[in-house]
Amino acid sequence: MSRRVRVGLLGCGNIGTTFALTVRESSERLAALTGLQIELTRIAVRDKDKPRDRGLPAELFTTDPDDVVAADDIDVVVELMGGIEPAGELLLVALGKGKPVVSANKELVANRAPELYRTADEAGVDLLFEAAAVAAVPVVRTLRESLRAEPLRRLVGIINGTTNYILSAMSERGLEYGAALAEAQQLGYAEPDSDADISGKDAASKLAILASLAFGMHLSAADVLAEGIESVDAEDFVIAKRYGFEIKALAVAESWPEGSTSLEVFPSLVAEQHPLAKVRGSYNAVAITGALCGELMVYGAGAGREATTSALLGDLVDAADNLARGTHRRVPVHRPARLRPRDEVDCAFYLKLRVLDEPGTLSAVSSVLGRHGVSIRFVEQENSERQTELVFFTHPTTLRDMDAARAELVQLPEVLELIRALRVL
Amino acid sequence: MSRRVRVGLLGCGNIGTTFALTVRESSERLAALTGLQIELTRIAVRDKDKPRDRGLPAELFTTDPDDVVAADDIDVVVELMGGIEPAGELLLVALGKGKPVVSANKELVANRAPELYRTADEAGVDLLFEAAAVAAVPVVRTLRESLRAEPLRRLVGIINGTTNYILSAMSERGLEYGAALAEAQQLGYAEPDSDADISGKDAASKLAILASLAFGMHLSAADVLAEGIESVDAEDFVIAKRYGFEIKALAVAESWPEGSTSLEVFPSLVAEQHPLAKVRGSYNAVAITGALCGELMVYGAGAGREATTSALLGDLVDAADNLARGTHRRVPVHRPARLRPRDEVDCAFYLKLRVLDEPGTLSAVSSVLGRHGVSIRFVEQENSERQTELVFFTHPTTLRDMDAARAELVQLPEVLELIRALRVL
Repeated sequence: MSRRVRVGLLGCGNIGTTFALTVRESSERLAALTGLQIELTRIAVRDKDKPRDRGLPAELFTTDPDDVVAADDIDVVVELMGGIEPAGELLLVALGKGKPVVSANKELVANRAPELYRTADEAGVDLLFEAAAVAAVPVVRTLRESLRAEPLRRLVGIINGTTNYILSAMSERGLEYGAALAEAQQLGYAEPDSDADISGKDAASKLAILASLAFGMHLSAADVLAEGIESVDAEDFVIAKRYGFEIKALAVAESWPEGSTSLEVFPSLVAEQHPLAKVRGSYNAVAITGALCGELMVYGAGAGREATTSALLGDLVDAADNLARGTHRRVPVHRPARLRPRDEVDCAFYLKLRVLDEPGTLSAVSSVLGRHGVSIRFVEQENSERQTELVFFTHPTTLRDMDAARAELVQLPEVLELIRALRVL
Repeated sequence: MSRRVRVGLLGCGNIGTTFALTVRESSERLAALTGLQIELTRIAVRDKDKPRDRGLPAELFTTDPDDVVAADDIDVVVELMGGIEPAGELLLVALGKGKPVVSANKELVANRAPELYRTADEAGVDLLFEAAAVAAVPVVRTLRESLRAEPLRRLVGIINGTTNYILSAMSERGLEYGAALAEAQQLGYAEPDSDADISGKDAASKLAILASLAFGMHLSAADVLAEGIESVDAEDFVIAKRYGFEIKALAVAESWPEGSTSLEVFPSLVAEQHPLAKVRGSYNAVAITGALCGELMVYGAGAGREATTSALLGDLVDAADNLARGTHRRVPVHRPARLRPRDEVDCAFYLKLRVLDEPGTLSAVSSVLGRHGVSIRFVEQENSERQTELVFFTHPTTLRDMDAARAELVQLPEVLELIRALRVL
C-alpha cells in the first residue's frame, strides 16, 4: 500500500510556492492518511532562474511543461498557471496520457470544461477543481457530490473578495467607492489591476463553474451577464440601511421551471436578515436552494494562498487515492446550456431619480412605472438644497418591463437623471 | 451502463416515507444522472399493517429485516431505524455480504463506527452517513473528503435545532426557558420528550461523528462532556446583549497541540459579530478552523424529512455509482482517541452571583478569583430592591482554576448564590 504518487506542478507563483512547500512538508502525514507516498517531483515554470523559496530545490524546476504533462515519471498534474492557453492544451495532453488533473484555473474550467471532461472520462481519470471557484469554501464538491441527485433551484453567491471588501468598507465606514478601492489595493485585497474583479468578470467565471455543477448544464463565462459595482455610491448605502438593506455584489444562478437557467452578476440590495448580508470583508459565501435541502450556505475564505492550497490538497489526495485504486470521480453529466432570456428574469428594484421639484412629478413618474406593470412598494422624496430625489422600492417585475419603464422615465421632462437602478434580493 | 441497483430500506417512519417516495419519483432523473436504474425494492418495518402512504405499494414491505440485509436481490441498504441495536447487527450483516450502507443513524455511527468501518473496508464497500449529522448541511463529506488532508484545529457547531429554536425565542422575544420550550414543542420543533435535545445528548452524538472525521480519531458519544441549556434564563440574555453577546448551545471539538482532543456541548455566550451568533431558529451551522482553510462555515437545515432525504439521496447515488464501478470511498483512517482532561481546557467565563449588599463583598469575591488565577475583564454590580448581584466577565482561564474558584466562592459568607457560570466564545 505504499505506492508512490509523483506530482508534477504547472506554475509556481505565490500559490504554487505555498502549495509545493505544503506538499513537501506534509508527506509523512499524507502517507499515514492515504497509505501513499505523495511526492512533488517536478515544477514547470517560465523562468528557471527566478529566485525561489529555499525549501524548493533547483532540481525540481524545468522550463518545459512537457516534462510535467507528458513525462512518464509524473502520475498527477496540478495546474496553477492560470489563463485559458496554453494551460488548456497542456491539460488535454496530461489527461490524454491518463494523468489525473487538479486545477485552480477558473477561466479554463469556466470556458473549456466540456472538452476537458470528455478527455478525462475517456482516459478514466479525475479532473478536480475545487480551488477554481471560491478557494477553500467547500462548494464545488458539495454541488458535484452531495447535492448531485437533487434538483436545485437557485444559487446566490458573494464570490469575489475584492468587491465584497470594497462594498463592506463603504457600508461600515461610509467610504466612497474610489477611497474603498484604493484602500483594498493598498491592503492587498485588490490587485493593482482589479478590472476583472470590479467588472464582475472574475465572478462570472466562478458562477459558470458552480452553476454548471448545480444544474448539470454546460455553462460558460460568456453565458453570464455581468454588471460592475462602480456606480454604487455612499448615499445608496445610507438609503438602503434606512430600509433594512445591505448592498452586496451578488452572483445569481437560477433554474426556471421550464428548464432554462439565468446567470447574472450584479450589485444588489440584500435584506439585513439574510445570511449573505453578514458576509463581510474579503470573505465569500454561496447560498444554495433546493427542493429537499432547503436553504444551505457555505462560507469562508474565497482566495489567498493558504485557502487555495487547502482546496488543492483535498483534491490532490482524492486524485492520488483514486488513481492508486484504479478509479475516478464520475464526470458530471452535462446537458447543453439553455439560457433564459435576461428579459424574462424577475426582480424587485431600488430606483433613485433626480427630478424637478414640482407638483405632478411624482404622479408622472408613477404613471410611467404603472403603465409598464411595475408596482411600487414604497416611495420616498428627498429634498436637499441642491436637488430633489425620488427613491422607489418596487415589487418584483421582469427586467423587460423595468428596462422599458426606465427608457421612458429618462424621456420625461420632470426627470433630470436616473441616478441608480439596483436590484433587491 | 443501465445496470440496476436495488435498494433495501430499514425503517419507514416520517423520514423513511419521504425518502422512499423521493427515490421512486426520481428514478428517471437518477438514471439520466448516473446511468443506473436505482430502484426501491424492499422496505423492512416492524408493523406491516400500519397504514402507509399510497405511493408505496404493500408488496414492498416485509417484517423480516433479513429480507433487506441478507437478501440476494438487494444491492444497497439504507438504514433509518435509529437506535444502536438491532440496527448495528443488521448493518454488519449487510456490509459483510458486500452491500454498501447509507445510514442516518447518529447514535449508531457515534458509538460503533470502528467496527462498522472495519467490516465495510474488509468487504470493499461504502459506509456513508451524511444524514447522521446535521442532515442536509454538507459537513460530513466536507470533513471526510475536502478537508481530509488538512490538520484541523477546531470545530464549533450549533447542531441541535430544538435548543437553537428555544434560545433564539428567548433572545428575540424575551421568553423564559419554559415558555420557549413549550412553544417549540407546540410547533413541532421539539419532540414531546425532548430530553435528548435539552441535555445535549443529541448534539454529543453528532459532535462525536464530526470530530472523528475532523481529527481522524475514534471518538464516541461517551467522550463528549455535555451540559444542558435548562439553567439559562431570560435575564442572562439581557446582560449578554448589553455586552454584545448572544447565548447559543454550542458543540465544540478542539485539537490541542500535543495531539489530544476535547469534546464538549454547553450553552455559551457568543460575540454578536461571530457568524454563529446569527444562526437563528431551527437552523444549524458548523464552523471549522484549519491551518490552511482558515475559518469556514456550513449552514442549513439540520433536521426534517426533506433535509434528511437530501443527504440520504446524495449518499445513495454515490454508493450505487461506486458499487457499479466496483469501487468505494476510502474509510477514514482513525487513530485511537486521546482526550484532553476537561480540567485543562481554557475558556473565558460569564459569572453571576447573588451577594450581600455590603462593603467588602466585591473585594472578597475578586480576591478568591485572583487567588485562583482567574483574571477579571469587567465586573458589574446590579442592585435591585430584592437583591444585589455581581456579574463578572473573566479572561480565559482553565476549567480547573474556574472550578476551584467556584467551589471557594460558594463558601464565602458574602456569596448567597452562584446563579450562573457560562462560557464565552
